[in-house]
Amino acid sequence: MNQHLNNDTICAISSGGGMSAIALIRLSGDKSINILNKIFSKKISSNESHSVHFGIIKEDNNILDEVVVTVFAKNKSFTGEETVEISCHGSEYIQKKILELLITLGVRIANPGEFTMRAFQNGKLDLSQAESIADLIESDHEASHKNAIKQLRGGFKEKLENLRNNLIDFASLIELELDFSEEDVEFANRDKLKELLLEIKSEISSLINSFKLGNVIKNGIPVAIIGSPNVGKSTLLNTLLNEEKAIVSDIAGTTRDAIEDELIIEGQKFRFIDTAGLRFTDDTIEKIGIKKSIQKVNESKIIIHLIDGTKNINEQIKNIENLNFNNNEIVIRIINKEDITEQNNLEDNNYLCISALKKTGIDKLKNKLISFYKLQKTSNNDTIITNVRHFNELKNTLLEIDAIIEGLKNNTSSDFLTINIRQALFHLGSITGEINTDDLLANIFGKFCIGK
Amino acid sequence: MNQHLNNDTICAISSGGGMSAIALIRLSGDKSINILNKIFSKKISSNESHSVHFGIIKEDNNILDEVVVTVFAKNKSFTGEETVEISCHGSEYIQKKILELLITLGVRIANPGEFTMRAFQNGKLDLSQAESIADLIESDHEASHKNAIKQLRGGFKEKLENLRNNLIDFASLIELELDFSEEDVEFANRDKLKELLLEIKSEISSLINSFKLGNVIKNGIPVAIIGSPNVGKSTLLNTLLNEEKAIVSDIAGTTRDAIEDELIIEGQKFRFIDTAGLRFTDDTIEKIGIKKSIQKVNESKIIIHLIDGTKNINEQIKNIENLNFNNNEIVIRIINKEDITEQNNLEDNNYLCISALKKTGIDKLKNKLISFYKLQKTSNNDTIITNVRHFNELKNTLLEIDAIIEGLKNNTSSDFLTINIRQALFHLGSITGEINTDDLLANIFGKFCIGK
Repeated sequence: MNQHLNNDTICAISSGGGMSAIALIRLSGDKSINILNKIFSKKISSNESHSVHFGIIKEDNNILDEVVVTVFAKNKSFTGEETVEISCHGSEYIQKKILELLITLGVRIANPGEFTMRAFQNGKLDLSQAESIADLIESDHEASHKNAIKQLRGGFKEKLENLRNNLIDFASLIELELDFSEEDVEFANRDKLKELLLEIKSEISSLINSFKLGNVIKNGIPVAIIGSPNVGKSTLLNTLLNEEKAIVSDIAGTTRDAIEDELIIEGQKFRFIDTAGLRFTDDTIEKIGIKKSIQKVNESKIIIHLIDGTKNINEQIKNIENLNFNNNEIVIRIINKEDITEQNNLEDNNYLCISALKKTGIDKLKNKLISFYKLQKTSNNDTIITNVRHFNELKNTLLEIDAIIEGLKNNTSSDFLTINIRQALFHLGSITGEINTDDLLANIFGKFCIGK
Repeated sequence: MNQHLNNDTICAISSGGGMSAIALIRLSGDKSINILNKIFSKKISSNESHSVHFGIIKEDNNILDEVVVTVFAKNKSFTGEETVEISCHGSEYIQKKILELLITLGVRIANPGEFTMRAFQNGKLDLSQAESIADLIESDHEASHKNAIKQLRGGFKEKLENLRNNLIDFASLIELELDFSEEDVEFANRDKLKELLLEIKSEISSLINSFKLGNVIKNGIPVAIIGSPNVGKSTLLNTLLNEEKAIVSDIAGTTRDAIEDELIIEGQKFRFIDTAGLRFTDDTIEKIGIKKSIQKVNESKIIIHLIDGTKNINEQIKNIENLNFNNNEIVIRIINKEDITEQNNLEDNNYLCISALKKTGIDKLKNKLISFYKLQKTSNNDTIITNVRHFNELKNTLLEIDAIIEGLKNNTSSDFLTINIRQALFHLGSITGEINTDDLLANIFGKFCIGK
């Protein structure tokens, strides 16, 4: 695998782009310290791993900046290579000039994810851990963060390795049979193999099933709020959003521009889908618009059906039923305007009563939303797949496992079984990177941000 | 001065906001290490200044991130206080959570510039140096960067201190005269005082004069391109911009969105002013639009008058003269379309010939632009004022110096002179921060970016 490793020294701005108080420029590769010493006012050495040095970066005889330099020796750094980090003032000019200086001295600008790829290639991380770093950086709420950090800490890796090692043991026995094929012996206990295959199938199926949830955890659970015009959809959304936004904006400097339709409840992100224009009509042209909205609703995992408590409730429910959603997911029926309705005792197991305007009953609604998430979560095992590449490799593995099980049933000969077992091992191994190709690595790390 | 110092421990995200490979969170104050130890997997101590530690940040028992922590002991840090820097993954969620954790443990979010203010208050920098850090971070081209780094390195400080110390010596002699006022002696040699005052006046005037240049260096020299419609103004601007842009975008990840009308030539920024709509007309309504354009042109330091080489040149010059600019700055006359004109020998000392379309003669134009900058620069001494606060304090000092000179001429008594000398010392001292008030500091550091 190491034959694919580029040995040149790379650099990148690893902190956020643009103007800031401090920027971090990272160098990795054999010549990092050597090159830094050409522009830095102090002599640093690889003997001083994990040490920090204040000094000046010079270009010819001009002072470029006062910086703080951190040294990491080979095998003691994130990438496994000799690494230097330059903490400079976050002027765009200074950042650009330091990169230019480094390039002049033979350093190459790193490709996206190249630091992490080198960490993988130097055996510091397996591939699923390396991939989790991109997820970790992108995580913007507790649940997505939790999955990523778990994967980074290697939970996933261990599970797959166990499955794969068991399968390898059997594979070697089966392959042994091939060597003695003329003697017609069976080294591999077919019953035990079947047992193992069923176990693997169960584990893999469970991981595959977790992907659906993993994906909504990562990107936010899609929720559609539907209901007749003027039932209070926007008011409800605003009420939900405003409360949560206040918490975030307490900390100056951390919030980005508000995303109007995302909401984090108890650490899980919910993504509200715009269903404006959802009406009940016979007009042909308007029906096209409605069709689009229905499509969007069908993509959601939760439908909040908002009902006007001051109007005929059954009629409103019938109207929605007439729209023929083919959505199998949860529908939460909410009766709004509880503050002004004259109908009594509306709330029961099927209905929640709220007032979006007066902000009453909102907690009950939030609890309903979060209970959906918790329900889904407990129905899965601990490990949740969020990566579409892993999902695909697991599905490929499952196909091979099914083929082996089928083959055993039909007493297929060892040499045919071997083909499927090897394929299964290949797919499982490519998840953690035991098996990899240049194309695969380029594809994975190309999705990273620069500087990681 | 230290009585104004807040002793609480502060924190901020010092790297650029938003998602990035790595983010830097900085803590400063007596309790920095103590507080970090409550959430970090390793025990760090102030004995290990300038050391780096890889470990885990935990919230309760959940792993929040794998981070690298750098320790700076008291008196060995930028602020002069105990300082800890946390290098975490640049997920917005992780950054926010670490700040939340720190706040829970009694750390306060830093005000803009508060780290630098503390560095000033702990005597690590004088006030003009502290101010230069904001300029340094904002610098986006070589010339503005050069001024800022020079000021950071203390060049300015020394010059002012010399002037001030000389003035203080005389002040003490004059004040001594007050003690012996009944005896009518003169300890201070009036001729020498006059000599010193003239010297100070000359130095200060030169600094004041440099401000005009300093300001255009910092923000870019404003240039207006004027001329009749279809003379090729936009083509020229595009030709100028495209060439320079290519250089910048060679380095991936460092360029921000292109600013259409700014251009850096030999390290100096030029700011091109839009003069669209500048025409020669008798129409009253159109004249209003033209007036606005003329106003803009009058704000520029350089006017490029672009002349169509295929048309009557004298007429075009007369037309521009009729517009009555009250601009005293340089006018560069450029004859465009040299590739298709049938007029010969147009270029002389007054005219440059180019073709904006065919990109010929552009270097000559650039040389003209940059020679304007160099001309201005050599007419000033080395130190250039870019800060409007310094400019105002210098003007205030000059007023007092003039009053003292006038007083000496009129044999004003020592006690009146003393008042002016004290005022002059006050204004000079407030530049480097020997004299400061809470309001002044709040005003200065409030303009910084967060985390510095």
